[in-house]
Amino acid sequence: MNAVSIPVRTRPAYQVQVGPGLLPDFGRILRDTLGHCRAAVVTDSVVGPLYLDAVRESLQSAGFRTVPHTVPAGEAHKNLSTLGGILEFLARERLTRSDALVALGGGVVGDMAGFAAAVYLRGIRYAQIPTTLLSAVDSSVGGKTAVDLRAGKNLAGAFAQPAAVLCDTDFLRTLPPETFADGMAEVVKTGVLSGESLLSMCEAGEVAAHETEVIARCVAYKAGVVERDEREQNERRLLNLGHTVGHAVEKCSGYTIPHGHAVAAGLGVIARAAEAFGWTAEPVAARICGCLAANGLPCGTDFPPEALSEAALSDKKRAGDTVTLVIPERVGGCVLRAVPVAELPDIIRAGCAPWT
Amino acid sequence: MNAVSIPVRTRPAYQVQVGPGLLPDFGRILRDTLGHCRAAVVTDSVVGPLYLDAVRESLQSAGFRTVPHTVPAGEAHKNLSTLGGILEFLARERLTRSDALVALGGGVVGDMAGFAAAVYLRGIRYAQIPTTLLSAVDSSVGGKTAVDLRAGKNLAGAFAQPAAVLCDTDFLRTLPPETFADGMAEVVKTGVLSGESLLSMCEAGEVAAHETEVIARCVAYKAGVVERDEREQNERRLLNLGHTVGHAVEKCSGYTIPHGHAVAAGLGVIARAAEAFGWTAEPVAARICGCLAANGLPCGTDFPPEALSEAALSDKKRAGDTVTLVIPERVGGCVLRAVPVAELPDIIRAGCAPWT
Repeated sequence: MNAVSIPVRTRPAYQVQVGPGLLPDFGRILRDTLGHCRAAVVTDSVVGPLYLDAVRESLQSAGFRTVPHTVPAGEAHKNLSTLGGILEFLARERLTRSDALVALGGGVVGDMAGFAAAVYLRGIRYAQIPTTLLSAVDSSVGGKTAVDLRAGKNLAGAFAQPAAVLCDTDFLRTLPPETFADGMAEVVKTGVLSGESLLSMCEAGEVAAHETEVIARCVAYKAGVVERDEREQNERRLLNLGHTVGHAVEKCSGYTIPHGHAVAAGLGVIARAAEAFGWTAEPVAARICGCLAANGLPCGTDFPPEALSEAALSDKKRAGDTVTLVIPERVGGCVLRAVPVAELPDIIRAGCAPWT
Repeated sequence: MNAVSIPVRTRPAYQVQVGPGLLPDFGRILRDTLGHCRAAVVTDSVVGPLYLDAVRESLQSAGFRTVPHTVPAGEAHKNLSTLGGILEFLARERLTRSDALVALGGGVVGDMAGFAAAVYLRGIRYAQIPTTLLSAVDSSVGGKTAVDLRAGKNLAGAFAQPAAVLCDTDFLRTLPPETFADGMAEVVKTGVLSGESLLSMCEAGEVAAHETEVIARCVAYKAGVVERDEREQNERRLLNLGHTVGHAVEKCSGYTIPHGHAVAAGLGVIARAAEAFGWTAEPVAARICGCLAANGLPCGTDFPPEALSEAALSDKKRAGDTVTLVIPERVGGCVLRAVPVAELPDIIRAGCAPWT
């Protein structure tokens, strides 16, 4: 499959361009989108050595003046201190509201650099260049930006849509298998949400051979949801399938378990819990867990249900005395369910129980 | 004049309520606006000892559960570190998206706590309770929130409208004269922008005796501008009259000169510069400077024009190679003028020159 372009009709609207060999065109595409300006390229200490020079070259050959900034890699650095470093860098370089930021990296860089762009001078334009499967299918699209607080993940952030998302699928060639698997968790999640055909591809091990198509389908599904509910008042909360417990797993691990692996565990737990509570319309848990395992992902966790429940309650999805869970009633049919905070430990316990 | 209510028709819309003896009604008014929820009251080390208990009592008597957080007073603490402290406090207290923040204090507290509310969980509701004239007439209204970076003032922030603004003019009784004067700079600025009648009151020394009316007029003027241009694309930039040089004065002083005094100096400088460059339609500089002096404010600065110019160029109002100045052509008639960055030193020099 050649490069494809998926429109995201938010305000402002933008295009997600996905395909192999796209890197040399980055500069031209961004030039068409952003016009003449300076571009601050923010990347991390893992991605920078691989792609920073090539990306700057692509931008500069299209007429951009670029300034680079590298942050330390890893979720542990997705905090206010690293955000402050990016903001001070933008200010030192005197970027103006006419200029733009380019986030080059995975979800951590994208979330944090996007947040910096959302608040620097109360908002400048930014583009996402995702370099992982996870950020290509999920975090680059939809305009959710954030950093972690000590009390939990993504607790400070902004809704700010990018001006463009550019994904060269050749970048995924350099991903370690575990990092590719990490992204597969969000692909499987999207399969459970969107329906049979994508989930079947995941089960059949067909994703790596059809990366552009799979990424495009995930992006198109997410774009549709985000267009209808940009600020996560309603339908968009479905995209949090697996994330309430997933974020709790991440937190309990001190953020040593990567996001996708934690979401996979959360998907498995909520699927089993939903079945145990009679909230499903068809057997979903065995199928979801089988698919996760086939893609090198966990489908459960050893953390105690009480600790998970406690961690989950510091998450954003809590509102007053209820917490909203996403329940997979069937493949292609998930629903929101507000449950009392007091019932969460029992639900998680049911999802973590030895499973027969 | 009794309490008055000024509507601000932004999205969302809100009311600014101003008057003497309003404190006991704060709880009831906020209850009508926010419904049942918890309220995090953020204040500073100067205002807290004066009003925190009374405000919490008013809120609690209306059914709010409140949690207090006090930050150190002063512009020097309006930074990412203090912001982080507020965000971690909100997370520790597990405030949810259904809850709200109440900013109790002057412009520093309002800007910073408003910013915290704008980004905590990607945005919760907040109310402003201004305790200074400056914050009552200016910073509480309009939804501009921010913190300072090392490179300059208000360089990181968000547009986020409050859910309500409550101003008990009795609070202004406890202001030191210098702090009252600080607010008068923004009142005089609003007089120059809005026209004869408000400026005449400032010149005649009638403000203290007509606080509610003056605050209401300043708020109504600003509300009109903000309603037409919430994100400062255009007309709203007029409100920056005196602020390009004003921010530079603050920065050159290491933020020891308070905002209003710096804006007063900036007003004087730009008025004289505008006259010197032939950009005015009537003599404005002598009148503006006389009015500032009559209200205990400076109308110039001793910092070298080169240093001011350098400091001004790190300000947000720069876009690419031009900087947009607000020029007082006449009282009640100010215009935006984009000037090349290279000309700014000469303009500031003309405004700082010994004046005859």
